Amino acid sequence: MKLIGYYRSSASYRIRIVLNVKGIEWEYVTVRLDKGEQLESAHSRLNPMKLVPVLDTGNLQLAQSVAIAEYLESTYPEPPLIPTGAIAQAQFRDMVQIISSDIQPLTNLRVLKHLRANYALDGEGVDRWCQTWIGRGFEAFEQRAVQHSADGQYSFGNSLTLADAWLVPQVYNADRFGLDMQPYPTINSVFRHLQTIEAVASAHPALQPDAPVPSRD
Amino acid sequence: MKLIGYYRSSASYRIRIVLNVKGIEWEYVTVRLDKGEQLESAHSRLNPMKLVPVLDTGNLQLAQSVAIAEYLESTYPEPPLIPTGAIAQAQFRDMVQIISSDIQPLTNLRVLKHLRANYALDGEGVDRWCQTWIGRGFEAFEQRAVQHSADGQYSFGNSLTLADAWLVPQVYNADRFGLDMQPYPTINSVFRHLQTIEAVASAHPALQPDAPVPSRD
Repeated sequence: MKLIGYYRSSASYRIRIVLNVKGIEWEYVTVRLDKGEQLESAHSRLNPMKLVPVLDTGNLQLAQSVAIAEYLESTYPEPPLIPTGAIAQAQFRDMVQIISSDIQPLTNLRVLKHLRANYALDGEGVDRWCQTWIGRGFEAFEQRAVQHSADGQYSFGNSLTLADAWLVPQVYNADRFGLDMQPYPTINSVFRHLQTIEAVASAHPALQPDAPVPSRD
Repeated sequence: MKLIGYYRSSASYRIRIVLNVKGIEWEYVTVRLDKGEQLESAHSRLNPMKLVPVLDTGNLQLAQSVAIAEYLESTYPEPPLIPTGAIAQAQFRDMVQIISSDIQPLTNLRVLKHLRANYALDGEGVDRWCQTWIGRGFEAFEQRAVQHSADGQYSFGNSLTLADAWLVPQVYNADRFGLDMQPYPTINSVFRHLQTIEAVASAHPALQPDAPVPSRD
Protein backbone atom coordinates (compact mmCIF):
# COMPACT_ATOMS: atom_id res chain seq x y z
CA MET A 1 0.00 0.00 0.00
CA LYS A 2 1.56 3.27 -1.14
CA LEU A 3 0.34 6.75 -0.28
CA ILE A 4 1.51 9.24 -2.87
CA GLY A 5 1.30 12.59 -1.14
CA TYR A 6 2.91 15.77 0.10
CA TYR A 7 3.63 16.58 3.72
CA ARG A 8 1.49 19.72 3.81
CA SER A 9 -1.36 18.64 1.51
CA SER A 10 -4.36 18.49 3.80
CA ALA A 11 -6.02 15.71 1.79
CA SER A 12 -2.81 13.64 2.15
CA TYR A 13 -2.82 14.40 5.89
CA ARG A 14 -6.43 13.11 6.14
CA ILE A 15 -5.47 9.78 4.58
CA ARG A 16 -2.36 9.43 6.75
CA ILE A 17 -4.65 9.69 9.78
CA VAL A 18 -7.08 7.09 8.36
CA LEU A 19 -4.28 4.63 7.53
CA ASN A 20 -2.69 5.07 10.96
CA VAL A 21 -5.95 4.71 12.89
CA LYS A 22 -6.80 1.53 10.99
CA GLY A 23 -3.30 0.19 11.56
CA ILE A 24 -2.67 -0.34 7.84
CA GLU A 25 1.00 -0.63 6.81
CA TRP A 26 1.82 1.97 4.18
CA GLU A 27 4.76 3.36 2.30
CA TYR A 28 5.03 7.09 1.70
CA VAL A 29 5.90 8.41 -1.75
CA THR A 30 6.45 12.13 -2.05
CA VAL A 31 5.26 14.39 -4.85
CA ARG A 32 6.79 17.83 -4.45
CA LEU A 33 3.84 20.16 -5.06
CA ASP A 34 6.14 23.14 -4.47
CA LYS A 35 8.24 22.00 -7.46
CA GLY A 36 5.24 21.19 -9.70
CA GLU A 37 5.95 17.44 -9.78
CA GLN A 38 2.18 16.78 -9.73
CA LEU A 39 1.94 18.27 -13.24
CA GLU A 40 4.38 15.75 -14.72
CA SER A 41 2.99 12.87 -16.75
CA ALA A 42 4.25 10.21 -14.31
CA HIS A 43 1.78 11.63 -11.80
CA SER A 44 -1.04 12.84 -14.06
CA ARG A 45 -1.33 9.30 -15.45
CA LEU A 46 -2.23 8.19 -11.92
CA ASN A 47 -4.45 11.18 -11.20
CA PRO A 48 -5.65 13.34 -14.09
CA MET A 49 -6.67 16.02 -11.55
CA LYS A 50 -2.88 16.46 -11.01
CA LEU A 51 -3.43 16.62 -7.27
CA VAL A 52 -2.48 14.50 -4.27
CA PRO A 53 -3.05 12.15 -2.60
CA VAL A 54 -3.21 8.98 -4.65
CA LEU A 55 -3.54 5.65 -2.89
CA ASP A 56 -1.82 2.86 -4.83
CA THR A 57 -2.88 -0.60 -3.65
CA GLY A 58 -0.81 -2.36 -6.33
CA ASN A 59 -3.61 -3.06 -8.78
CA LEU A 60 -5.74 -0.02 -8.01
CA GLN A 61 -4.88 3.68 -7.99
CA LEU A 62 -7.37 5.91 -6.24
CA ALA A 63 -7.50 9.67 -6.00
CA GLN A 64 -9.94 11.91 -4.04
CA SER A 65 -9.68 11.56 -0.28
CA VAL A 66 -13.41 10.88 0.22
CA ALA A 67 -13.29 8.01 -2.29
CA ILE A 68 -10.08 6.64 -0.74
CA ALA A 69 -11.48 6.79 2.79
CA GLU A 70 -14.78 5.12 1.88
CA TYR A 71 -12.77 2.40 0.08
CA LEU A 72 -10.52 1.84 3.11
CA GLU A 73 -13.59 1.71 5.36
CA SER A 74 -15.15 -1.06 3.26
CA THR A 75 -11.93 -3.09 2.93
CA TYR A 76 -10.50 -2.47 6.43
CA PRO A 77 -13.66 -2.06 8.52
CA GLU A 78 -11.92 -1.93 11.92
CA PRO A 79 -12.07 0.37 13.73
CA PRO A 80 -15.15 1.81 12.01
CA LEU A 81 -14.70 5.46 11.00
CA ILE A 82 -18.20 5.97 9.58
CA PRO A 83 -21.20 5.83 11.95
CA THR A 84 -24.05 3.39 11.35
CA GLY A 85 -27.64 4.28 10.45
CA ALA A 86 -28.89 6.35 7.52
CA ILE A 87 -29.66 9.48 9.55
CA ALA A 88 -26.39 9.49 11.50
CA GLN A 89 -24.45 8.86 8.28
CA ALA A 90 -26.19 11.74 6.55
CA GLN A 91 -25.45 14.14 9.41
CA PHE A 92 -21.87 12.88 9.56
CA ARG A 93 -21.34 13.18 5.77
CA ASP A 94 -22.68 16.74 5.98
CA MET A 95 -19.80 17.58 8.35
CA VAL A 96 -17.19 15.86 6.19
CA GLN A 97 -18.40 17.72 3.10
CA ILE A 98 -18.33 21.10 4.84
CA ILE A 99 -14.56 20.61 4.92
CA SER A 100 -14.20 18.63 1.66
CA SER A 101 -16.37 20.89 -0.49
CA ASP A 102 -16.92 24.23 1.22
CA ILE A 103 -13.54 24.93 2.79
CA GLN A 104 -10.54 23.05 1.46
CA PRO A 105 -11.03 23.45 -2.32
CA LEU A 106 -10.87 27.23 -1.94
CA THR A 107 -7.56 27.16 -0.07
CA ASN A 108 -5.85 24.52 -2.16
CA LEU A 109 -2.27 25.37 -3.21
CA ARG A 110 -3.25 25.47 -6.91
CA VAL A 111 -5.88 28.14 -6.14
CA LEU A 112 -3.51 30.24 -4.05
CA LYS A 113 -0.88 30.05 -6.81
CA HIS A 114 -3.51 31.14 -9.35
CA LEU A 115 -4.57 34.07 -7.16
CA ARG A 116 -0.95 35.17 -6.73
CA ALA A 117 -0.19 34.90 -10.45
CA ASN A 118 -3.38 36.44 -11.83
CA TYR A 119 -4.75 38.71 -9.10
CA ALA A 120 -1.48 39.92 -7.58
CA LEU A 121 -2.27 38.58 -4.11
CA ASP A 122 0.62 38.86 -1.68
CA GLY A 123 1.14 36.83 1.49
CA GLU A 124 -1.31 38.96 3.46
CA GLY A 125 -3.87 38.76 0.67
CA VAL A 126 -3.59 34.98 0.62
CA ASP A 127 -4.04 34.87 4.40
CA ARG A 128 -7.19 37.02 4.17
CA TRP A 129 -8.62 34.86 1.35
CA CYS A 130 -8.05 31.68 3.35
CA GLN A 131 -9.34 33.19 6.59
CA THR A 132 -12.57 34.15 4.83
CA TRP A 133 -13.40 30.67 3.56
CA ILE A 134 -12.08 28.66 6.50
CA GLY A 135 -13.90 31.01 8.88
CA ARG A 136 -17.25 30.66 7.11
CA GLY A 137 -16.89 26.89 7.02
CA PHE A 138 -15.77 26.60 10.63
CA GLU A 139 -18.78 28.66 11.71
CA ALA A 140 -20.99 25.92 10.24
CA PHE A 141 -18.81 23.01 11.41
CA GLU A 142 -18.80 24.43 14.95
CA GLN A 143 -22.62 24.46 15.02
CA ARG A 144 -22.75 20.90 13.72
CA ALA A 145 -20.14 19.77 16.25
CA VAL A 146 -22.15 21.34 19.08
CA GLN A 147 -25.12 19.25 17.90
CA HIS A 148 -23.29 15.99 17.24
CA SER A 149 -20.18 15.76 19.42
CA ALA A 150 -20.96 13.66 22.47
CA ASP A 151 -18.49 15.25 24.86
CA GLY A 152 -16.20 17.62 22.95
CA GLN A 153 -13.62 14.88 22.31
CA TYR A 154 -14.71 13.90 18.78
CA SER A 155 -16.53 15.82 16.03
CA PHE A 156 -19.34 13.30 15.75
CA GLY A 157 -20.55 10.99 18.53
CA ASN A 158 -18.11 9.46 20.98
CA SER A 159 -15.45 7.89 18.78
CA LEU A 160 -13.03 8.92 16.06
CA THR A 161 -14.57 9.22 12.58
CA LEU A 162 -13.58 10.57 9.19
CA ALA A 163 -14.99 13.92 10.33
CA ASP A 164 -12.05 14.08 12.78
CA ALA A 165 -9.54 12.95 10.14
CA TRP A 166 -10.85 15.83 8.00
CA LEU A 167 -10.93 18.40 10.82
CA VAL A 168 -7.36 18.04 12.08
CA PRO A 169 -5.66 19.04 8.77
CA GLN A 170 -8.15 21.89 8.38
CA VAL A 171 -7.28 23.31 11.80
CA TYR A 172 -3.58 22.95 10.93
CA ASN A 173 -4.27 24.98 7.78
CA ALA A 174 -6.30 27.57 9.68
CA ASP A 175 -3.30 28.11 11.93
CA ARG A 176 -0.94 28.47 8.95
CA PHE A 177 -3.15 31.22 7.56
CA GLY A 178 -3.57 33.02 10.88
CA LEU A 179 -7.29 32.42 11.47
CA ASP A 180 -8.51 33.56 14.88
CA MET A 181 -9.80 30.28 16.38
CA GLN A 182 -11.46 31.89 19.41
CA PRO A 183 -15.02 31.66 17.91
CA TYR A 184 -14.84 27.86 17.62
CA PRO A 185 -14.63 26.38 21.15
CA THR A 186 -15.96 22.92 20.24
CA ILE A 187 -13.58 22.59 17.29
CA ASN A 188 -10.73 23.62 19.60
CA SER A 189 -11.76 21.11 22.25
CA VAL A 190 -12.00 18.26 19.71
CA PHE A 191 -8.71 19.26 18.09
CA ARG A 192 -6.88 19.31 21.43
CA HIS A 193 -8.19 15.87 22.30
CA LEU A 194 -7.31 14.39 18.91
CA GLN A 195 -3.71 15.55 19.27
CA THR A 196 -3.34 13.18 22.22
CA ILE A 197 -4.00 10.17 19.96
CA GLU A 198 -0.73 8.75 18.62
CA ALA A 199 -2.23 7.68 15.25
CA VAL A 200 -3.35 11.26 14.68
CA ALA A 201 -0.29 13.02 16.09
CA SER A 202 2.13 10.93 14.00
CA ALA A 203 0.36 12.04 10.78
CA HIS A 204 1.39 15.66 11.37
CA PRO A 205 3.06 17.31 8.35
CA ALA A 206 6.18 18.27 10.31
CA LEU A 207 6.87 14.59 11.05
CA GLN A 208 6.79 13.45 7.41
CA PRO A 209 10.03 12.64 5.57
CA ASP A 210 9.44 15.37 2.97
CA ALA A 211 8.94 18.14 5.54
CA PRO A 212 11.60 20.84 5.18
CA VAL A 213 12.82 23.29 7.75
CA PRO A 214 9.70 25.37 8.61
CA SER A 215 8.81 27.75 5.79
CA ARG A 216 5.80 29.23 4.02
CA ASP A 217 5.09 28.97 0.34
CA MET B 1 -40.40 15.90 1.36
CA LYS B 2 -39.31 19.49 0.71
CA LEU B 3 -36.34 20.56 -1.36
CA ILE B 4 -35.22 24.03 -0.36
CA GLY B 5 -33.24 25.29 -3.31
CA TYR B 6 -32.65 27.81 -6.06
CA TYR B 7 -33.27 27.20 -9.72
CA ARG B 8 -29.70 27.83 -10.82
CA SER B 9 -27.84 26.34 -7.84
CA SER B 10 -26.05 23.36 -9.30
CA ALA B 11 -26.21 21.41 -6.04
CA SER B 12 -30.01 21.93 -5.99
CA TYR B 13 -30.15 20.80 -9.62
CA ARG B 14 -28.28 17.58 -8.68
CA ILE B 15 -30.83 16.73 -6.01
CA ARG B 16 -33.78 17.52 -8.29
CA ILE B 17 -32.40 14.91 -10.69
CA VAL B 18 -31.96 12.33 -7.91
CA LEU B 19 -35.50 12.89 -6.56
CA ASN B 20 -36.99 12.69 -10.07
CA VAL B 21 -35.07 9.55 -11.06
CA LYS B 22 -36.11 7.79 -7.85
CA GLY B 23 -39.71 8.90 -8.35
CA ILE B 24 -39.90 10.58 -4.95
CA GLU B 25 -42.69 13.16 -4.53
CA TRP B 26 -41.23 16.50 -3.48
CA GLU B 27 -42.25 20.05 -2.90
CA TYR B 28 -40.00 22.88 -4.04
CA VAL B 29 -39.24 25.78 -1.71
CA THR B 30 -37.25 28.64 -3.17
CA VAL B 31 -34.47 30.56 -1.47
CA ARG B 32 -33.51 33.55 -3.60
CA LEU B 33 -29.72 33.45 -3.58
CA ASP B 34 -29.67 36.56 -5.77
CA LYS B 35 -31.46 38.46 -2.98
CA GLY B 36 -29.35 37.02 -0.15
CA GLU B 37 -32.22 35.11 1.44
CA GLN B 38 -29.81 32.27 2.30
CA LEU B 39 -28.10 34.60 4.79
CA GLU B 40 -31.29 35.19 6.79
CA SER B 41 -31.71 33.35 10.08
CA ALA B 42 -34.75 31.37 8.86
CA HIS B 43 -32.41 29.62 6.43
CA SER B 44 -29.14 29.60 8.38
CA ARG B 45 -30.90 27.77 11.20
CA LEU B 46 -31.52 24.94 8.72
CA ASN B 47 -28.08 25.14 7.16
CA PRO B 48 -25.33 27.03 8.98
CA MET B 49 -23.29 26.99 5.73
CA LYS B 50 -25.95 29.43 4.43
CA LEU B 51 -26.07 27.56 1.14
CA VAL B 52 -28.65 25.50 -0.74
CA PRO B 53 -29.97 22.90 -1.10
CA VAL B 54 -31.50 21.66 2.13
CA LEU B 55 -33.66 18.54 2.07
CA ASP B 56 -36.38 18.69 4.70
CA THR B 57 -37.97 15.29 5.35
CA GLY B 58 -40.20 16.64 8.12
CA ASN B 59 -38.12 15.46 11.07
CA LEU B 60 -34.71 15.75 9.43
CA GLN B 61 -33.04 18.66 7.66
CA LEU B 62 -30.02 17.74 5.56
CA ALA B 63 -27.60 19.98 3.74
CA GLN B 64 -24.68 19.03 1.43
CA SER B 65 -25.73 17.33 -1.78
CA VAL B 66 -23.41 14.31 -1.30
CA ALA B 67 -24.89 13.64 2.15
CA ILE B 68 -28.44 14.12 0.84
CA ALA B 69 -27.89 11.78 -2.11
CA GLU B 70 -26.29 9.03 -0.03
CA TYR B 71 -29.22 9.33 2.41
CA LEU B 72 -31.80 9.09 -0.39
CA GLU B 73 -29.91 6.09 -1.80
CA SER B 74 -30.14 4.25 1.52
CA THR B 75 -33.79 5.11 2.15
CA TYR B 76 -35.08 4.89 -1.45
CA PRO B 77 -32.77 2.24 -2.94
CA GLU B 78 -34.58 1.92 -6.30
CA PRO B 79 -33.33 2.52 -8.88
CA PRO B 80 -29.78 2.27 -7.47
CA LEU B 81 -27.66 5.34 -8.23
CA ILE B 82 -24.45 4.06 -6.63
CA PRO B 83 -22.66 1.05 -8.17
CA THR B 84 -21.93 -2.06 -6.09
CA GLY B 85 -18.51 -3.36 -5.10
CA ALA B 86 -15.78 -1.54 -3.18
CA ILE B 87 -13.55 -0.91 -6.21
CA ALA B 88 -16.35 0.32 -8.50
CA GLN B 89 -17.67 2.54 -5.69
CA ALA B 90 -14.24 4.05 -5.13
CA GLN B 91 -13.76 4.80 -8.84
CA PHE B 92 -17.30 6.19 -9.02
CA ARG B 93 -16.87 8.38 -5.90
CA ASP B 94 -13.66 9.72 -7.40
CA MET B 95 -15.70 11.05 -10.35
CA VAL B 96 -18.41 12.53 -8.12
CA GLN B 97 -15.80 14.30 -5.99
CA ILE B 98 -14.01 15.76 -9.02
CA ILE B 99 -17.19 17.78 -9.51
CA SER B 100 -18.17 18.17 -5.84
CA SER B 101 -14.74 19.19 -4.55
CA ASP B 102 -12.50 20.23 -7.42
CA ILE B 103 -14.88 22.14 -9.69
CA GLN B 104 -18.11 23.40 -8.20
CA PRO B 105 -16.87 25.00 -4.95
CA LEU B 106 -14.66 27.35 -6.95
CA THR B 107 -17.51 28.59 -9.15
CA ASN B 108 -20.12 28.89 -6.42
CA LEU B 109 -22.12 32.15 -6.47
CA ARG B 110 -20.70 33.20 -3.07
CA VAL B 111 -17.15 32.92 -4.47
CA LEU B 112 -17.97 34.85 -7.64
CA LYS B 113 -19.62 37.60 -5.55
CA HIS B 114 -16.52 37.74 -3.35
CA LEU B 115 -14.23 37.99 -6.40
CA ARG B 116 -16.35 40.79 -7.85
CA ALA B 117 -16.47 42.73 -4.58
CA ASN B 118 -12.85 42.29 -3.50
CA TYR B 119 -10.83 41.71 -6.66
CA ALA B 120 -12.78 43.88 -9.09
CA LEU B 121 -13.62 41.01 -11.43
CA ASP B 122 -16.05 41.96 -14.20
CA GLY B 123 -18.24 39.57 -16.20
CA GLU B 124 -15.37 38.54 -18.45
CA GLY B 125 -13.10 38.02 -15.48
CA VAL B 126 -15.69 35.80 -13.82
CA ASP B 127 -16.06 33.79 -17.03
CA ARG B 128 -12.28 33.29 -17.23
CA TRP B 129 -12.09 32.23 -13.57
CA CYS B 130 -14.87 29.68 -14.05
CA GLN B 131 -13.49 28.40 -17.35
CA THR B 132 -10.12 27.76 -15.66
CA TRP B 133 -11.49 25.56 -12.90
CA ILE B 134 -14.25 23.82 -14.83
CA GLY B 135 -11.78 23.13 -17.65
CA ARG B 136 -9.17 21.57 -15.37
CA GLY B 137 -11.81 19.43 -13.71
CA PHE B 138 -13.45 18.36 -16.97
CA GLU B 139 -10.04 17.33 -18.32
CA ALA B 140 -9.85 14.81 -15.45
CA PHE B 141 -13.54 13.83 -15.58
CA GLU B 142 -13.25 13.19 -19.33
CA GLN B 143 -10.35 10.77 -18.77
CA ARG B 144 -12.27 8.97 -16.04
CA ALA B 145 -15.39 8.78 -18.22
CA VAL B 146 -13.35 7.28 -21.07
CA GLN B 147 -12.22 4.58 -18.62
CA HIS B 148 -15.55 3.94 -16.91
CA SER B 149 -18.42 4.80 -19.28
CA ALA B 150 -19.66 1.60 -20.92
CA ASP B 151 -20.92 3.18 -24.14
CA GLY B 152 -20.86 6.96 -23.87
CA GLN B 153 -24.41 7.12 -22.54
CA TYR B 154 -23.63 7.34 -18.81
CA SER B 155 -20.59 8.62 -16.91
CA PHE B 156 -20.01 5.34 -15.09
CA GLY B 157 -20.99 1.90 -16.34
CA ASN B 158 -24.22 1.39 -18.25
CA SER B 159 -26.87 3.02 -16.07
CA LEU B 160 -27.58 6.38 -14.51
CA THR B 161 -25.65 7.12 -11.31
CA LEU B 162 -24.97 10.09 -9.06
CA ALA B 163 -21.99 10.87 -11.31
CA ASP B 164 -24.53 11.76 -14.03
CA ALA B 165 -26.68 13.78 -11.63
CA TRP B 166 -23.52 15.72 -10.77
CA LEU B 167 -22.31 16.07 -14.37
CA VAL B 168 -25.46 17.56 -15.92
CA PRO B 169 -25.55 20.71 -13.73
CA GLN B 170 -21.81 21.15 -14.20
CA VAL B 171 -22.14 21.11 -18.00
CA TYR B 172 -25.02 23.60 -17.68
CA ASN B 173 -22.68 25.84 -15.67
CA ALA B 174 -19.84 25.40 -18.14
CA ASP B 175 -22.14 26.64 -20.87
CA ARG B 176 -23.21 29.65 -18.77
CA PHE B 177 -19.57 30.65 -18.38
CA GLY B 178 -18.67 30.08 -22.02
CA LEU B 179 -16.32 27.09 -21.66
CA ASP B 180 -15.25 25.55 -24.98
CA MET B 181 -16.58 21.99 -24.66
CA GLN B 182 -14.82 20.65 -27.75
CA PRO B 183 -12.02 18.91 -25.74
CA TYR B 184 -14.51 16.71 -23.86
CA PRO B 185 -16.19 14.36 -26.36
CA THR B 186 -17.22 11.70 -23.83
CA ILE B 187 -18.75 14.28 -21.49
CA ASN B 188 -20.64 15.74 -24.45
CA SER B 189 -21.89 12.32 -25.52
CA VAL B 190 -23.08 11.44 -22.00
CA PHE B 191 -24.68 14.88 -21.56
CA ARG B 192 -26.59 14.60 -24.83
CA HIS B 193 -27.92 11.17 -23.88
CA LEU B 194 -28.94 12.27 -20.38
CA GLN B 195 -31.00 15.13 -21.81
CA THR B 196 -33.26 12.54 -23.45
CA ILE B 197 -34.27 11.19 -20.03
CA GLU B 198 -37.43 12.92 -18.76
CA ALA B 199 -36.42 12.76 -15.07
CA VAL B 200 -33.21 14.61 -15.93
CA ALA B 201 -34.65 17.05 -18.46
CA SER B 202 -37.44 18.16 -16.12
CA ALA B 203 -34.88 19.14 -13.45
CA HIS B 204 -33.46 21.87 -15.72
CA PRO B 205 -33.19 25.30 -14.04
CA ALA B 206 -35.28 27.03 -16.71
CA LEU B 207 -38.24 24.78 -15.88
CA GLN B 208 -38.29 25.59 -12.15
CA PRO B 209 -40.93 27.93 -10.73
CA ASP B 210 -38.34 30.44 -9.51
CA ALA B 211 -36.64 30.78 -12.91
CA PRO B 212 -36.89 34.35 -14.22
CA VAL B 213 -36.68 35.55 -17.78
CA PRO B 214 -33.12 34.54 -18.86
CA SER B 215 -30.49 36.75 -17.26
CA ARG B 216 -26.98 36.56 -15.80
CA ASP B 217 -25.98 37.61 -12.34
